[in-house]
Order: sequence, then structure tokens, then C-alpha cells
Amino acid sequence: MNGARRRYAILAPGSFADARAKTAHGVIRYAEDTTVAVIDPDCAGKCVRDVLPYLECDAPIVATVAGALAFKPTSLLVGVAPPGGALPASWRGEIAAALDAGLDVVSGLHESLGSDPEFAAFAQRGKTSIWDVRLPPAVPLFSGRAYEVGARVVLTVGSDCAIGKMTVALELTRAARERNVRARFVATGQTGIMIAGSGIAIDRVISDFASGAAEAIVVEAACDADLLFVEGQGGINHPAFAPVTLALVFGAAPDALVLVHRPTRTVIEHFETPLLSYRQLIRIYEGLCASVKPARVAGIALNTSDLSEAEALAQIARARTETGLPAGDVVRFGPHRLYDEMAGAFADKTQPLGRASAVQ
Amino acid sequence: MNGARRRYAILAPGSFADARAKTAHGVIRYAEDTTVAVIDPDCAGKCVRDVLPYLECDAPIVATVAGALAFKPTSLLVGVAPPGGALPASWRGEIAAALDAGLDVVSGLHESLGSDPEFAAFAQRGKTSIWDVRLPPAVPLFSGRAYEVGARVVLTVGSDCAIGKMTVALELTRAARERNVRARFVATGQTGIMIAGSGIAIDRVISDFASGAAEAIVVEAACDADLLFVEGQGGINHPAFAPVTLALVFGAAPDALVLVHRPTRTVIEHFETPLLSYRQLIRIYEGLCASVKPARVAGIALNTSDLSEAEALAQIARARTETGLPAGDVVRFGPHRLYDEMAGAFADKTQPLGRASAVQ
Repeated sequence: MNGARRRYAILAPGSFADARAKTAHGVIRYAEDTTVAVIDPDCAGKCVRDVLPYLECDAPIVATVAGALAFKPTSLLVGVAPPGGALPASWRGEIAAALDAGLDVVSGLHESLGSDPEFAAFAQRGKTSIWDVRLPPAVPLFSGRAYEVGARVVLTVGSDCAIGKMTVALELTRAARERNVRARFVATGQTGIMIAGSGIAIDRVISDFASGAAEAIVVEAACDADLLFVEGQGGINHPAFAPVTLALVFGAAPDALVLVHRPTRTVIEHFETPLLSYRQLIRIYEGLCASVKPARVAGIALNTSDLSEAEALAQIARARTETGLPAGDVVRFGPHRLYDEMAGAFADKTQPLGRASAVQ
Repeated sequence: MNGARRRYAILAPGSFADARAKTAHGVIRYAEDTTVAVIDPDCAGKCVRDVLPYLECDAPIVATVAGALAFKPTSLLVGVAPPGGALPASWRGEIAAALDAGLDVVSGLHESLGSDPEFAAFAQRGKTSIWDVRLPPAVPLFSGRAYEVGARVVLTVGSDCAIGKMTVALELTRAARERNVRARFVATGQTGIMIAGSGIAIDRVISDFASGAAEAIVVEAACDADLLFVEGQGGINHPAFAPVTLALVFGAAPDALVLVHRPTRTVIEHFETPLLSYRQLIRIYEGLCASVKPARVAGIALNTSDLSEAEALAQIARARTETGLPAGDVVRFGPHRLYDEMAGAFADKTQPLGRASAVQ
């Protein structure tokens, strides 16, 4: 791509309208690359705005890669993140067709498309390439270098997966920049990396090194920023993904946390584990931080996208009352008010309980 | 090896006498395979008993693989687990010499020896093979299957790494069997796998799947046992390794926990993070379990190996007083008393807060 912006055709077969396509939605909304078409036979004939008005995008939705080529994409982006990250067999033909047509392919699946011999052959034939966003670089063990950075580090944590931790980090970064703070978004998952152009998918790192990977991206991002908003992952009582959450809580060594919650969610997605209350979540996140490097929850960012405005305001008021903390919906009402209310808490640099020495 | 027991030469250059060689010590003590020689130039000329009497082993210590061949080993075991798991360059020649002599090589390093072209060539020349113990099989995401097993699951958790969580699980398994309980040790790290002959090194699993890997080995082990003792990893406030710890706390879905502690340890190894008190540890481990599947700490297993007997008894008394729980050192005083005191707590089968449905 030689530094030029991509023109994306986004593959989201059968799922563009729902939360499974959160990668597609995030890239359309926040990436500087342009989306020129979406591929989903279930919505073909409509445009993005017809299906999801909030994305404010007029790209057409078509049924196949062949149909998308009329809109001159440079790249096919796999816009769905199925649990476990394996490639559904039915998508293979579309990906092969894109490579054959010379599009580069950007994928956040666990499964590496670049190491698939068939795709590699198609990429060679189409003189193009595959970017497996989720494949992490080699990273060292956590060493304590994150304790030494000058930037203040804010981590978004949540009550569950797929509720808006990345979006909150992006919106708060924007608000901070508009307040003339040298703020930077730190991507830790595939969609965030596609948006930011850098980062490490912590969930794809070998678990011994997950904390070290979080540290590595914080140390790197802190070189040219004063305030980092690190994209959180999972949830601390998620039976499957909590280890990834904890890798960020300890590895990113945050100075403050922002708690993200979707009030209509009552159980962990795909499980029946009840979601914790605000007070339980604050106690458990702050309790873990207190055992290594103290950090407090600075405020509550609510995702009220499936509530009326009156209901949203009521939920925000409830969060404020229950926790005594600033609360708001940074998408619905913009990030500035919540950012300004939390900015004082972001200004403090905390210290680890013990200074870490390098692991030998 | 065709099912025959191995005769090990154990490679531990420059470190057999210290804790870096914990893999060597664990295998000598607990594996059914025989250790016929140890390779460590620093101790050459002595025997194992001279250096570490508690291992009760008369195998000679020699300087090189060439020197070990006189004792007719079938296998070279890499007996040291350096942080990060990479292969020190100076060991390459010894490993190559072993392969060239026809020994199979058993390694628990993160770095796969089998995929090293030079070692692969030596293995082919020596008509032998390499077992990379730490390389995990493909595992599914955590699904909640662990909630359905009939066996009761006990997980050893700890205040830090390298304090005896594996040893406690092994000793309690032995005690349970001697009480005619169908008990089984479940290995989750390289040394445990070398001892048990099966298991998955959770720290080597991609973090998204770490909880699923813990579930997979529990489900498999529960097929022919009524009581499982799962080897814990790391510590819940370990800045680098706590994600692995949490993968076991949620993924193994324990019914009870045994808390392992070494009283002389005051900070997390290689860091300056203070160790948590018994009450803090119990609160944090039980608090996490309470958010998914409740489990209580059944007792405290102390590692008093660096204390006098009087000091050890005082520490055990202190642990009992501070926690109101059974406490003991299962190595120093044998596992039976502590096992018997905890057996009632092991008899209860707990239930998750919500019944998990399969991840789609």
C-alpha cells in the first residue's frame, strides 16, 4: 500500500447488521481509511446508512467480492470476529477472489490467512499481500519498564466483552486532543489495530508474555504522548477472556481506569455468569491494581445505544449515584463532558508498590 | 521410547544446586522415569545427594553429555526453566551431542527445539526424536464443559511462582490415593507434564485460549477420577504471570482451593511487588471465584524448606491462627494430616453462578 490510504471492501457475510461485525463497524466509524463497499448478501442493495445510521456512511452493500470491485477497493477487510477466530469455510472463496483480483487482505482472525498455502498462492498470483493483524511480534516478558514511562496511562476496563471499551478509549483520546493534550490511543485488539495502524492483539499472545506485550505497546506509545488511552479487553469475571483483561490491568500498569458498561447487558455474553454491579466491579478492579500498582476508577462510560434518551439519562444518573463518580455516554453525548470531569484523575501518576527490577 | 521408562541425563549447567533447576528437582523427585546422571560442570564429581540431600538420589553429576553417556541414559532432559523460556546459546552443543548419540531430548522451554533445523538434523542423524513438552495442542475456547464434570476439582494457588504449588498437588494426590480415593494430579506446567506424562503448559497457550486449555485438561482427567488436584501457576498479583493464574482459577472451575506459600518469601520473585498476606490472598482468590463459580480456600500448604523445624511449626501455627484454616507442610511432615483436615472441604461440589451455554 506504500503508505497510501486503503479503500476497503469489508467482508461481513450474514452479519453486517449485528454485533458480530463489530470490527466492520469500528473501522467504518474510526479508521482514516475509506470504506467503499460492504459485502453481506443479507443486506445487499442497501447502503451502510440504511442498516446502521449511526455509522454515517453511504457505502453500498453488495453480495459478493465480484460485486464490490466496481467501487474500486484496494483492500478486502475481514470485518467479522467469530468467537475463537477461525475462518468459516464459506468465506474462503470470497477471500481467494479478492486476492486474485489484486486486493490486499486485512484480517483479524486468530487463524493466519498468510500461512494458508492456498491463499498464499492466490496472493502471489494477484501480486498482493495479506496482513494478519492479530499475529503478534515477539515480545519480552513483563519487566517493569511500564512503571518508568512519563506518560499517564488510562485503561478502559469493562463488565463484559463487546460493550465499547475500544470506542471509549478512542473518544476520550479525541476529547483530550481537542483540549490540547498530547494524547494517544493504544490498540490491543484487531479492530483497534486496524484503526490505529499499530498495536498488539493481546488475546493472540502466548499467555506467559501477554502482560509483557501490554507493557511493550505502552512503553512504545509513551515516547511521543503525555496521556495514553489503552483499549481494554474482555471483563474481569469473564470465564474465557479474563486472563487477557488481567494482562492489561497489570501489563499496561495504568494510573487510572475508566469502567465501561452496557446497562442492558445482564449476563456475560455467551454465558450465564451474571454481570457484576458497579460497586463489585470497582472493588475487584481496584483491588487487583492495589496489589501491584494502585489505580482508581476515574469514571463510568456507559453504552446506551439500545436505550431511549430518557432511559440513557436515567442510567447515567443511576451510575453517578451508585458510585459517586462521573458518568456519561461518550458516543451519544460526546466525550468532552466526561473527559473534563475525569481529567483531574488522569493527571496523577501512580507508583507501583515495589519498584520492579528487570527479570533476569 | 515405546512406553518403556526413560533413563534421564538431566542438563542443568551452572544451576543444578539452585531454584532455576526446579524442573530437574521435580523430575528426580516425582517422575517414575529414572535419573541416571545430571550435567552441571559446577557440581561435577559429586552426586545428587551431596548437593540436595532431600532428593534422595545417588545419580552422579558430570560436566558434559559425553561424560553422562557412561551411565546409559536413553534421554536428555533440559532441567532448567529460564525466565522467558529461551535456549541459552551455550547449551546448543550439549543438546546436539545428545541427539547425535541417539538420546531423545525432552524440553520444557518456550522455544521449540524440534522446529530448530540444526537440532532436527541431529535428531535425524541420531535416529531419535525431540519432545517439546511445552508446545500445546490446539484447544477450543472455554465453553463451560468444566462445570459439568462429576469429579471434584481442587486447584493449588499461591502467593508467588516457584514456591511449591506443583509439589503440593502431587503430595495431596498421593495422600488421597492412600485413602482409597480415585485421585489424579493434573499437570499445567512443563515439569508437571514431564512427571505425569500428560497435561498442557497453560503459560504456552495463546491467552484467548488459556482458560479453554485449563478446562480441556480438567474435562479429560475427570473421565477416570473422582478428585482432581490441578497444579496452579504463578500468583494472582504477579505482574507478569497473573494472567496464567487466572486462566486456571476460571478455566479449571475449581470446587476448592489450596493456598501455597513460602513464609520466607516477602516480594514477588524478580520484582519488588510485596507478597500479599494470607487474608488478602484468600479475599482476592475467593472474590474472583465468587464472581463466576464460588470456591473457598480449604487450607494453607506451607513450604518451610528453608526454616528450622521449630520455625516451621511456628509458621504453621501462625497460618492457622491468622486464617482459621488447616495448615501444614506436606513435604516436611507428609501430606496425610493436612489432607485429612481438608478432605471435608474437598467433598463438596460447587456450582457456577450461571449455567454456561456453549460459545457459538
